Amino acid sequence: MDSYISDAVIRRLPRYRRYLKKLSGQGVQRISSKELGSIMDVTASQIRQDLNHFGGFGQQGYGYGVEDLSQKLEEIMGLDRTYNIGVVGCGRLGQAIISYLANNEPFYKLAGLCDNRADMVGTEINGVKVEDKASFKETMKKGIDILIITAPARIAEEVAADIEGTEIKGIWNFGMTEFHIKGVKVINVHLSDSLHALCYYINHPD
Amino acid sequence: MDSYISDAVIRRLPRYRRYLKKLSGQGVQRISSKELGSIMDVTASQIRQDLNHFGGFGQQGYGYGVEDLSQKLEEIMGLDRTYNIGVVGCGRLGQAIISYLANNEPFYKLAGLCDNRADMVGTEINGVKVEDKASFKETMKKGIDILIITAPARIAEEVAADIEGTEIKGIWNFGMTEFHIKGVKVINVHLSDSLHALCYYINHPD
Repeated sequence: MDSYISDAVIRRLPRYRRYLKKLSGQGVQRISSKELGSIMDVTASQIRQDLNHFGGFGQQGYGYGVEDLSQKLEEIMGLDRTYNIGVVGCGRLGQAIISYLANNEPFYKLAGLCDNRADMVGTEINGVKVEDKASFKETMKKGIDILIITAPARIAEEVAADIEGTEIKGIWNFGMTEFHIKGVKVINVHLSDSLHALCYYINHPD
Repeated sequence: MDSYISDAVIRRLPRYRRYLKKLSGQGVQRISSKELGSIMDVTASQIRQDLNHFGGFGQQGYGYGVEDLSQKLEEIMGLDRTYNIGVVGCGRLGQAIISYLANNEPFYKLAGLCDNRADMVGTEINGVKVEDKASFKETMKKGIDILIITAPARIAEEVAADIEGTEIKGIWNFGMTEFHIKGVKVINVHLSDSLHALCYYINHPD
């Protein structure tokens, strides 16, 4: 594997896997980079270049084994294991994400919930109790891998201040706060970016 | 303006605007492509190339006017007007998106809501009444520009079948269904793609 792989390449891996899973579900066993590129609207050469970072996989004149490549991509992304998830902010967005993960993602196990609102603390979501910040601080130390943050900035910052010394390795951040915590990778989700791109397309029809 | 601009360029425009808005809010009036690139973790040359598709904007040795460029990008994306929004599926995710738009996005006006569940029909969200499919079919004809779809596949498909003949020009799709409707641009939001990228980073620390 290359020592440096650009963010752009890594951001494309989930999409490759998504298409391969779908093709596999449709019974497709083998596909050329050209065919896959045509379905995904990228060039065959980009697919080959991207995958070459991880050692290739295709065979000249044979193409990729669909199920095999999908599994390899899962291994590369670490989707062959389970992650303990803590959710900070259990309002509508937090609950929508919890449902989404429960219904679509076998890789994630809900392991802790935090919300400081009095009417939320003590309630249960998907069998996990909602804790206030003070109590959640202890839960964070019990093997949570990823924090999903949908809480308002002040709460998000207070929780983030307690991350050091836990095993938390990643933050999936839906809020506006930016986090810079040593040893913790943060991915910021900017929902409206794709809505703004949609507006561009609406205003520039072909 | 170029006649063909790649999707990748268009997908980067909202991010440029986001950073410029933030810089403008911090009182920065002028910035070079090099400084902006360093903040955004892209190359100065990519910024210049991307913006050149729309006619440039920067001046050699002067840089970009932050507020001016931010406004130009809004005009290019069509964020200088208002869009009537219809939301199909008013569960947790639909409601989270409605709140998000109401709190963060001045460009969108909630103009119609659809949900077929008996306990939702007739309730109001942000002052707009939730309608069942049959009733929403008429609302769709009254100048809705963008449909946001979070409903299950069956409902989503039935609503989509009624889009032809309306003024709907875009779909912001959070569901798994794929839409192909003539004259309608669809952007599919795959929430978990960024979560899977996060897993990659967790498993490949620097």
